[in-house]
Amino acid sequence: MASVSSAFLHAGGQPPPALARRYQSIRATTVRLCQPLRAEDQQLQSMSDASPTKWHLAHTTWFFEMFILSQQPGYQPFHPDFGRLFNSYYHSLGNPPARAERGLWSRPSLDEVHAYRRHVDEALLRLMEQPAAPQTEQAVELGLHHEQQHQELLLTDVKHALFRHPWRQAYAPQAAPVSPVQTPPLCWHRFPEGLRWMGHDGPGFSFDNERPRHRVFVHAFQLASRLVTSGEWLEFMRAGGYRNPLLWLSDGWALVQQENWSAPLYWEERDGAFFHMTLTGMRPVVPQEPVCHVSFYEADAYARFVGARLPTEAEWETAAGGVLIAGNFQESGRLHPAPAVSDDTSGPLQMFGDAWEWTASPHLPHPGYRPEPGPLGEYNAKFMCNQMVLRGGSCVTPASHLRRSYRNFFPPHARWQFSSLRLARDDAGSYNPE
Amino acid sequence: MASVSSAFLHAGGQPPPALARRYQSIRATTVRLCQPLRAEDQQLQSMSDASPTKWHLAHTTWFFEMFILSQQPGYQPFHPDFGRLFNSYYHSLGNPPARAERGLWSRPSLDEVHAYRRHVDEALLRLMEQPAAPQTEQAVELGLHHEQQHQELLLTDVKHALFRHPWRQAYAPQAAPVSPVQTPPLCWHRFPEGLRWMGHDGPGFSFDNERPRHRVFVHAFQLASRLVTSGEWLEFMRAGGYRNPLLWLSDGWALVQQENWSAPLYWEERDGAFFHMTLTGMRPVVPQEPVCHVSFYEADAYARFVGARLPTEAEWETAAGGVLIAGNFQESGRLHPAPAVSDDTSGPLQMFGDAWEWTASPHLPHPGYRPEPGPLGEYNAKFMCNQMVLRGGSCVTPASHLRRSYRNFFPPHARWQFSSLRLARDDAGSYNPE
Amino acid sequence: MASVSSAFLHAGGQPPPALARRYQSIRATTVRLCQPLRAEDQQLQSMSDASPTKWHLAHTTWFFEMFILSQQPGYQPFHPDFGRLFNSYYHSLGNPPARAERGLWSRPSLDEVHAYRRHVDEALLRLMEQPAAPQTEQAVELGLHHEQQHQELLLTDVKHALFRHPWRQAYAPQAAPVSPVQTPPLCWHRFPEGLRWMGHDGPGFSFDNERPRHRVFVHAFQLASRLVTSGEWLEFMRAGGYRNPLLWLSDGWALVQQENWSAPLYWEERDGAFFHMTLTGMRPVVPQEPVCHVSFYEADAYARFVGARLPTEAEWETAAGGVLIAGNFQESGRLHPAPAVSDDTSGPLQMFGDAWEWTASPHLPHPGYRPEPGPLGEYNAKFMCNQMVLRGGSCVTPASHLRRSYRNFFPPHARWQFSSLRLARDDAGSYNPE
Amino acid sequence: MASVSSAFLHAGGQPPPALARRYQSIRATTVRLCQPLRAEDQQLQSMSDASPTKWHLAHTTWFFEMFILSQQPGYQPFHPDFGRLFNSYYHSLGNPPARAERGLWSRPSLDEVHAYRRHVDEALLRLMEQPAAPQTEQAVELGLHHEQQHQELLLTDVKHALFRHPWRQAYAPQAAPVSPVQTPPLCWHRFPEGLRWMGHDGPGFSFDNERPRHRVFVHAFQLASRLVTSGEWLEFMRAGGYRNPLLWLSDGWALVQQENWSAPLYWEERDGAFFHMTLTGMRPVVPQEPVCHVSFYEADAYARFVGARLPTEAEWETAAGGVLIAGNFQESGRLHPAPAVSDDTSGPLQMFGDAWEWTASPHLPHPGYRPEPGPLGEYNAKFMCNQMVLRGGSCVTPASHLRRSYRNFFPPHARWQFSSLRLARDDAGSYNPE
Repeated sequence: MASVSSAFLHAGGQPPPALARRYQSIRATTVRLCQPLRAEDQQLQSMSDASPTKWHLAHTTWFFEMFILSQQPGYQPFHPDFGRLFNSYYHSLGNPPARAERGLWSRPSLDEVHAYRRHVDEALLRLMEQPAAPQTEQAVELGLHHEQQHQELLLTDVKHALFRHPWRQAYAPQAAPVSPVQTPPLCWHRFPEGLRWMGHDGPGFSFDNERPRHRVFVHAFQLASRLVTSGEWLEFMRAGGYRNPLLWLSDGWALVQQENWSAPLYWEERDGAFFHMTLTGMRPVVPQEPVCHVSFYEADAYARFVGARLPTEAEWETAAGGVLIAGNFQESGRLHPAPAVSDDTSGPLQMFGDAWEWTASPHLPHPGYRPEPGPLGEYNAKFMCNQMVLRGGSCVTPASHLRRSYRNFFPPHARWQFSSLRLARDDAGSYNPE
Repeated sequence: MASVSSAFLHAGGQPPPALARRYQSIRATTVRLCQPLRAEDQQLQSMSDASPTKWHLAHTTWFFEMFILSQQPGYQPFHPDFGRLFNSYYHSLGNPPARAERGLWSRPSLDEVHAYRRHVDEALLRLMEQPAAPQTEQAVELGLHHEQQHQELLLTDVKHALFRHPWRQAYAPQAAPVSPVQTPPLCWHRFPEGLRWMGHDGPGFSFDNERPRHRVFVHAFQLASRLVTSGEWLEFMRAGGYRNPLLWLSDGWALVQQENWSAPLYWEERDGAFFHMTLTGMRPVVPQEPVCHVSFYEADAYARFVGARLPTEAEWETAAGGVLIAGNFQESGRLHPAPAVSDDTSGPLQMFGDAWEWTASPHLPHPGYRPEPGPLGEYNAKFMCNQMVLRGGSCVTPASHLRRSYRNFFPPHARWQFSSLRLARDDAGSYNPE
Repeated sequence: MASVSSAFLHAGGQPPPALARRYQSIRATTVRLCQPLRAEDQQLQSMSDASPTKWHLAHTTWFFEMFILSQQPGYQPFHPDFGRLFNSYYHSLGNPPARAERGLWSRPSLDEVHAYRRHVDEALLRLMEQPAAPQTEQAVELGLHHEQQHQELLLTDVKHALFRHPWRQAYAPQAAPVSPVQTPPLCWHRFPEGLRWMGHDGPGFSFDNERPRHRVFVHAFQLASRLVTSGEWLEFMRAGGYRNPLLWLSDGWALVQQENWSAPLYWEERDGAFFHMTLTGMRPVVPQEPVCHVSFYEADAYARFVGARLPTEAEWETAAGGVLIAGNFQESGRLHPAPAVSDDTSGPLQMFGDAWEWTASPHLPHPGYRPEPGPLGEYNAKFMCNQMVLRGGSCVTPASHLRRSYRNFFPPHARWQFSSLRLARDDAGSYNPE
Repeated sequence: MASVSSAFLHAGGQPPPALARRYQSIRATTVRLCQPLRAEDQQLQSMSDASPTKWHLAHTTWFFEMFILSQQPGYQPFHPDFGRLFNSYYHSLGNPPARAERGLWSRPSLDEVHAYRRHVDEALLRLMEQPAAPQTEQAVELGLHHEQQHQELLLTDVKHALFRHPWRQAYAPQAAPVSPVQTPPLCWHRFPEGLRWMGHDGPGFSFDNERPRHRVFVHAFQLASRLVTSGEWLEFMRAGGYRNPLLWLSDGWALVQQENWSAPLYWEERDGAFFHMTLTGMRPVVPQEPVCHVSFYEADAYARFVGARLPTEAEWETAAGGVLIAGNFQESGRLHPAPAVSDDTSGPLQMFGDAWEWTASPHLPHPGYRPEPGPLGEYNAKFMCNQMVLRGGSCVTPASHLRRSYRNFFPPHARWQFSSLRLARDDAGSYNPE
């Protein structure tokens, strides 16, 4: 996601009723996520990378209207100008409005946006009652994954907006007190070299940037058993990590100085102790929790600090092969990464949920990649430069949204997502021939 | 007004009941001005020079609470943080929040701000029922003039915000169709040289920057009988006024090129005809109406184009001496400058109301000027650099707010106020001795 | 001078031989000022406000070529493109090249520029041998005053460039050790209110912005007997002057924070003591010397700090009326302001030379002002906005360049000129009638 | 090269006399490249990415002094401050001066820099006469490759500086008239899928970012037989390539609009025909020549326009395997890319020399990469983000500098290098298992 994103069905599948039920459920979830917020909160755009809650509500609806309903003969758009106004970045559909202006659109009001949602929902559910073309089903499926991406963005954008207000209000009350836990010590899982298959293949949904499934030669590597914790990050800070240029990529160091970074985003020192903004308000930093809201630059510098590196996408996907997709997702209601807890499997912990893991891999096309034809070709393909891939989902990602092949992406300076890191390192291996 | 501003009573006066009635009336007017707007509209900050409607509602209330109520023993502030949050620019009262962040404050909500207004109104009216110290009466008077300044800013800021939205919605419906009129031809009033008195003196209210009354030598001059019209401005445009560097001050020309100015703010060409944004929506430019939303640089260039110049403050105030303070003010409900109509007086038309008139005079202290002691000393004094004086009030200024000595001020590039111009020129006169 | 500037003869005068001698002398002085510099030094443009030495050498020559020689029948320009290349800001003569690019013009080389100077000098001296039209003499006179302005700018620009180099090399060796002196204590000269004549009138040269001579009413005032010293400025710094927003104009305070100003330009603290860059290298700050390289904002803040204010132009010119134009000018070779020394006159000290004195007056047209017709109308007129007037000349101004009516001007943030301040305050006086 | 760069000897080799001869030859070449330029030309820094010629002369010398001579007991640095002044970006060696300030260093003069070069050359040649440690030999080898990188940068930086001057002077006269040729039609070379070895291995020199040699799985692909020509680029321009957002990466399109790109850097339209700046002056664009001075964004958009893509590094290196390293390098004296000429080999043309070829690959560490220990670890490693790899060398690269594994790198927006493109496309291949 450069910010938003989407997907295209590779192959059809689900019978319509199930799809309709999933449609209703996912659409209702988006609305539910807004309930703690007032109309004025939902108007805020705290930086140009973020969007107002109200815009997310409208744009996800626009997606269904534009790519499905407007293809239907006789469909009347809800509003003559919404097609233009809520276009995010699809130049194929006209010149999109300037992104940074979204916070200036007090009209339509929140009530009108909800009416828009209901209008589109009714039309779409009516459409789904009829025997639908596979293409329509695929487009609905895509729209639902798109909506789930925006559910996550809605929460990260709200968190950023609430942080900019001097009051630092909580988005929601804390679900339950966090009981102190012992983090399992970091250990290393070893993976041998070999030719691996990577990317999505199968009957289910995937985005175009996960395809095609292809081979890649992966050298022997080791992967850390869990995410880096806030406690470990504090050691980095205390050791002068943010003041030592030798740990940083050149562009990262320039940014550290320009922005005066000295801790992850949302951290604040008060009388010698660190607090950070969470969706449940300002709270003391818990050393056992995974660190998050760090940029790729910070993740990379930390890895160098401890003599390790970030894993590549291919390494991560190789390691994720045998791990069950389960963890601390949006549905847990925790809204923050949780400390790692040992389980009875032998694989790495926290591979899914909690926080996105920066990889060492830029967002590039898989070999043989073909963007979708038509406007949806703009969904991912044009963001294949200056973006780094993140893997594994976060505490605000819907569980049903993730796949092992899922590729999230953000620029290396981005910090407002729930982004963390897992260490990797080379394993002994022969690089040179003979 | 650098943007906001205020005033200090020079001398007391009005018996409390009358003051209380005026208090209620002016405070109610502010609320009434917001009625066409929804909560989300009132949240918008479309540029850092402008403020959200909701902020104006809160800040004007803050002014009464901070400078009057909080001086009263036992007064409980409505909210512990409003004192800090709604401070505009008074460093004496603590470090004011960054101006450009006002649009990010979704909290307090509009409802809470109205509750704040009611709380302060009740406390203040209760206070006014008691025999009040003259100082309190003076402070109330100042607060009312401050509130009136913000009524004007509220409307100009809303106009700017509505213009930034692609829909260009009207703030209010047009009161009545504008009937075509004949503009009286421009003629010149002559004023002889002499030593003049300038500035405010008397029992009524004035801001500190209008004082003291002092002498100034004014050379013989001529003043135009009315404001420059949009029709005349179109001639300037058609003659290449915006493309000829020789007409412009150096800083103005740099801005013309940087911002690609080719017409007043809010003007747009559609199929060869000019329309402009008004508070009643997009409307064709009416040639007979005064041009407005021009910067000082544009006003100065236009004057040079026609071989004239802008009047100085002293000239304007000299000419205004015999003119009745009446005209197209906020109370007319027109919300836009109106064409000049000949009257039976022999003085210049449109001296008051319609649109502010840029003068050739920077906002400097009058000789003998003393800023008010205490925090209110920050009201005007620190804006005495890089600001030009405007005179005469506009169609969104409350009539009771104006005086002949009233000095409004904005930077020479500002365009979002109802700013226009009146021409002046030298009259024959002896400059050199003997 | 917005940076450069010029002048127009008001009335002719000098017989040609004398003018030719002055021409040769002033032109030779410019060349002599460059002698301590190498070709590479003369190429530097350390900020867009400053110009390379080589450019000053060429532009002053261009001035004579453009405004005199190119009017002569049969004159062959030295180079076909110099007319365009060395135009500073005269739009009447074509689109001037971007000012900030001057440092990129390695061609023509310094040698070629000197050849250009010789070519123009020869042609001009030949022209002056003939009976010249008064207009030509006036233009030569103007060109010489223009050249003298650039002599000063050349030195201030070189100082800035040398300061940007880590080595802080001296432009010239120090002429003589500065012997410690006792600064006379600051006292106040009183001037009564009255109608005064101001501006230039007479047979000699003046710039258009000094004219016409006109009347102005000046209220009673007091003027300090000398410039503010570096020692006094240190007290301001130690009292937190740079950290107290209440002392500053609003725009000044914004700049203090943005630029982290904590001392005059060129000052640096080393082990608790202050040093500053001078044209003779880094030297300890001498408390008895006038402070310089302060902006208008700083001068204004200092004046407020001590309960005084800056004088207006009219006050300064009134006070200068009886003072002899003599002092520490370029010819002294000191290249830095000198401590005040009591003399046997009863007037204020240091009115001329040492350092320019910021006044409280913006650079506005005198009443009845008319810019010169033709291209020279761009010399001063278009800089009559956002500029403050400085008076009195400096240690790098040629003595013969100054007049009592001389108006130098720079934006309020400018610091790289030798700019200082003298205090003023109101004297008892009646402001209100009756 | 982020701008500069370096290398570390992987294995020793050459006997000292040969190395000394190469040292003398390469150092002399650098000096020779400056001969067409005057001292003032060599002072210019036309943008912060570029450096003055004089700086290149000094910094390459600094490299030998810092990494070799200063390790020798008893060596006296030529100047006490050059160690700090001419440090490019090695934080291990202290805080490097701001890159954008290099153009402000008129001192040391060009003469002094040449004296510095002679001083270091003498000391180094003396050192090489003695039996040297292998480490010293390796460091000399690295310094020579470093110097060759700067020879190329010196020429591209000078080209940029001369272009910024309105006169567009040539760096050198054109060696010989370009005779019109017929460009061979573009055809495609096919390469099958397979596991390939990539990276440097062997006794000769390589930079650390070319190592280690490692395996990579390369899918079947096709590679164009020559570079894209200026004639083909004109078709792209005429077809609206610079105005169609659907052809561009998102960041590229933002830049096209912000910078108003409508042609490669250095192109200018004059009366309907295109000219461009070359090192031999402004010349008509020759359709048969390879296009150059295009950014990665433009190269990528062009490839999309013709339904192709850029090759990956691994593809390029695979294809280069059997191609002789020969072509239009610095030694040809042409100083500009030349049209492709068919030869009798069966491989792709123009793989080496003429112009760097943008690849689709970001500059990432090879698997198993280890930066050099010590300060030289900063040479390449910290530029492994936001940079794209270019391959094959250019018309200003010394022939002896290139290798098949050589990785040049610049940010995707950079245009001032001799950067061009070669097309690639997928070949039929099975991506999914089974």
